[in-house]
Amino acid sequence: MSITSRDPIDYAREREAAAVEQLKAWLAIPSISRDTEGHAADMQRAADWLVDALRAAGLENVAALPTQGFPVVYGDWLHAPGAPTVLIYGHYDVQPVKPDEWVSPPFEPVVRDGKLYGRGSADDKGQTFIHVKAVEALLKTRGHLPINVKFMIEGEEEVGSRSLPAFLTAEAERLAADTVVISDTSWVAPGVPTINVGLRGGVTLEVTLGGPAADLHSGLYGGSVHNPILAAAQIISRLHDEEGRVAVPGFYDRVRELTEEERLHAARIPVTDAHILAETGAPRLWGEAGYTALERMGMRPTLDVLKFVAGGDAAAIPSSATFRVATRLVPDQDPTDIFESVRDYILAVAPDTVRVSVKRANVGGPGVVIPPDAPGLDAARQALQETFGVVPVFARSGGGIPVVLMFRQQLGLPSLLMGFGLPDDGLHGPNEKLDLRQFGGGIETSIRFMQAFGVTSR
Amino acid sequence: MSITSRDPIDYAREREAAAVEQLKAWLAIPSISRDTEGHAADMQRAADWLVDALRAAGLENVAALPTQGFPVVYGDWLHAPGAPTVLIYGHYDVQPVKPDEWVSPPFEPVVRDGKLYGRGSADDKGQTFIHVKAVEALLKTRGHLPINVKFMIEGEEEVGSRSLPAFLTAEAERLAADTVVISDTSWVAPGVPTINVGLRGGVTLEVTLGGPAADLHSGLYGGSVHNPILAAAQIISRLHDEEGRVAVPGFYDRVRELTEEERLHAARIPVTDAHILAETGAPRLWGEAGYTALERMGMRPTLDVLKFVAGGDAAAIPSSATFRVATRLVPDQDPTDIFESVRDYILAVAPDTVRVSVKRANVGGPGVVIPPDAPGLDAARQALQETFGVVPVFARSGGGIPVVLMFRQQLGLPSLLMGFGLPDDGLHGPNEKLDLRQFGGGIETSIRFMQAFGVTSR
Repeated sequence: MSITSRDPIDYAREREAAAVEQLKAWLAIPSISRDTEGHAADMQRAADWLVDALRAAGLENVAALPTQGFPVVYGDWLHAPGAPTVLIYGHYDVQPVKPDEWVSPPFEPVVRDGKLYGRGSADDKGQTFIHVKAVEALLKTRGHLPINVKFMIEGEEEVGSRSLPAFLTAEAERLAADTVVISDTSWVAPGVPTINVGLRGGVTLEVTLGGPAADLHSGLYGGSVHNPILAAAQIISRLHDEEGRVAVPGFYDRVRELTEEERLHAARIPVTDAHILAETGAPRLWGEAGYTALERMGMRPTLDVLKFVAGGDAAAIPSSATFRVATRLVPDQDPTDIFESVRDYILAVAPDTVRVSVKRANVGGPGVVIPPDAPGLDAARQALQETFGVVPVFARSGGGIPVVLMFRQQLGLPSLLMGFGLPDDGLHGPNEKLDLRQFGGGIETSIRFMQAFGVTSR
Repeated sequence: MSITSRDPIDYAREREAAAVEQLKAWLAIPSISRDTEGHAADMQRAADWLVDALRAAGLENVAALPTQGFPVVYGDWLHAPGAPTVLIYGHYDVQPVKPDEWVSPPFEPVVRDGKLYGRGSADDKGQTFIHVKAVEALLKTRGHLPINVKFMIEGEEEVGSRSLPAFLTAEAERLAADTVVISDTSWVAPGVPTINVGLRGGVTLEVTLGGPAADLHSGLYGGSVHNPILAAAQIISRLHDEEGRVAVPGFYDRVRELTEEERLHAARIPVTDAHILAETGAPRLWGEAGYTALERMGMRPTLDVLKFVAGGDAAAIPSSATFRVATRLVPDQDPTDIFESVRDYILAVAPDTVRVSVKRANVGGPGVVIPPDAPGLDAARQALQETFGVVPVFARSGGGIPVVLMFRQQLGLPSLLMGFGLPDDGLHGPNEKLDLRQFGGGIETSIRFMQAFGVTSR
């Protein structure tokens, strides 16, 4: 290992362009974890790529550890006795794509106007790679890290981290740490460094309506039986009341009302309804009456229908209709309770002209809130402020990361959510991108975080 | 031509099994006319097959006549001076298929339990072939037909007979006749020979809702904007009132209330709500309050949503949702008026959280009613009664055949709807079949119809 006396920040800056080229090669691998997409070989290639990258950065004990599903890539550097240990979590799997909605192909990453476009650029390969390059810059310039670091990068985040519970139990010792650090979140707005202090949970339901035994000629049979599409629309239209509240009895029972202080804090975040309107491009905002869009997105539970597929091009009344209901839950809401409430409500409001079945489509989990005294929170705040020259905000975000809950429940580990995404990154949608200022600033922040955490905790 | 002194009915009966084998070869050609299915070559093969079959039956001037779309197959026999001329209309195109819902592959026709299964067996290759074999039996045994016959078998019935208006105008002289005979309808029940004296028309609308500019991460953005699926469900749920009536203002304005006589006649048809319930396999019947299922299916207008596609497997709020609304109209309802009423209503009830566009998806047409003194009606009644030993019923059916209206409006030609299908034939759905007793009886009926029509009109 060639040790220089240079500053790790300078070192990282000089090599940023090369790091972007490196990252492109990883983004080019379509590591879509959803089973139906058939990318098992790509998943392995993406894991292998990361193994090589961790080794090149100077990490030790690097390996793709087997799970019941796709492997977890592990690597560590544990030569800072007395200093805290950080477990850096990320994921190398990505969401499915609809290629025809992309300006440039999702797996041919390209830089346009200072932004790196490609599936996984922000969620989460790009953000994971930030920490790899930070560790590399420190090891190549100083020869050591100010803290102990473990990387644990999984391949099933986009499918609910389904193999992780068993993995965490089996590998509890290897994964011991003072805190988990996760960069898989976004700032509330450009120029507003954000530490996420809350994440929504969720549970998903699959609803199937059966009507006639077979598709029926719509001319001959129109008027005889209830079309499952009409019945489904009737049910869906009753999931919310006229003021955008979820109409399922009991849905809000365990939701704590926001305190005056929480609402004041939220109001200080420089993201107004007008910003969200512009960001989404919708004709108008919509949601639970009595809350700002930011409150609804981060601090209130929601319910949506994400897929509805029924009928076809034949002039026929379909024999069935299927739709998927996804909830986003805040702390104290129990996913199993919510699943049962939503299921019972759907069965209760469904007309008796159709046969209805409701299945739980994922395990899901509750929401979590991160307390102000969480380990590393101060170091993260300090590192963000030094790097971007702005006081960061603490915000609650809408997206759930199941693993945060698993770390807490299974290993007793707190998590620190220090993400570098921006609201318009297009996560899960077309034209996902990572702003290169966020990428470069992210590497600097990660270096400063490790330095600050090493000092404050000694 | 070898002329025998045999009875044409006996001749046809002896050759019925061979005729079924012949028909199978035609059914094996996947002549799906819907553009998106890419079966242009199969359409040509299906037309060519029919050209050969008409020639083999002894018809003259046989040709596949070009249209702006798929060809019309024509053939005639015009050597009965003084006798009426019948234009036999049918179609050789079929509906799309969902092969995994079929017990046996849709284009590998097979006989099971006295029924011929395969796409097009009932709708309408099988019913068209009935008349081909009837003509053949008469010509091979008697050497002549009792009436003048013209066949006109089109290839675009399942896509709204879109090239036919121009074709009818261009070929008006060639197509001159006393009546059209169409076998593309079903009996109201097994054992109840049925002459259809009314057909519903229809017009179809395509509705697209646009919400956010791109798909949005459902966790991050859930609660910010109106999900187009929820907005679409809201609109669809308002298309009918709680008693199953279409809620569009003006929809029923021009619908004539059924007369006491019409309702009494309908009540005499041996098809109860219990029959329809068993036939469809639905948990319960549904439709406009105050009418029997049979009345709703044949004599009342209806509105359905036949396709709804939105969202996908990504955890994302979709940027748009699309659904197709199909109406079935009775006489006096104007398709353009109805299109405008439904469009205006949808735009009026749509929430302002989405951008809505409504397009007319097909030209459509009004419904028609056939008067009791239509030419050939008596001969048809007599032929059905002689063949099946039961007095036929006159019923109004739900399915529309656009060409009936075109014949009337463009050529002044009445139509006679003498079909041989059964209610459970699975038209447009999986496992379409033709009962072979209907096929054989159909050939005999067609022979007797030509004989009776030739006698009564001389």
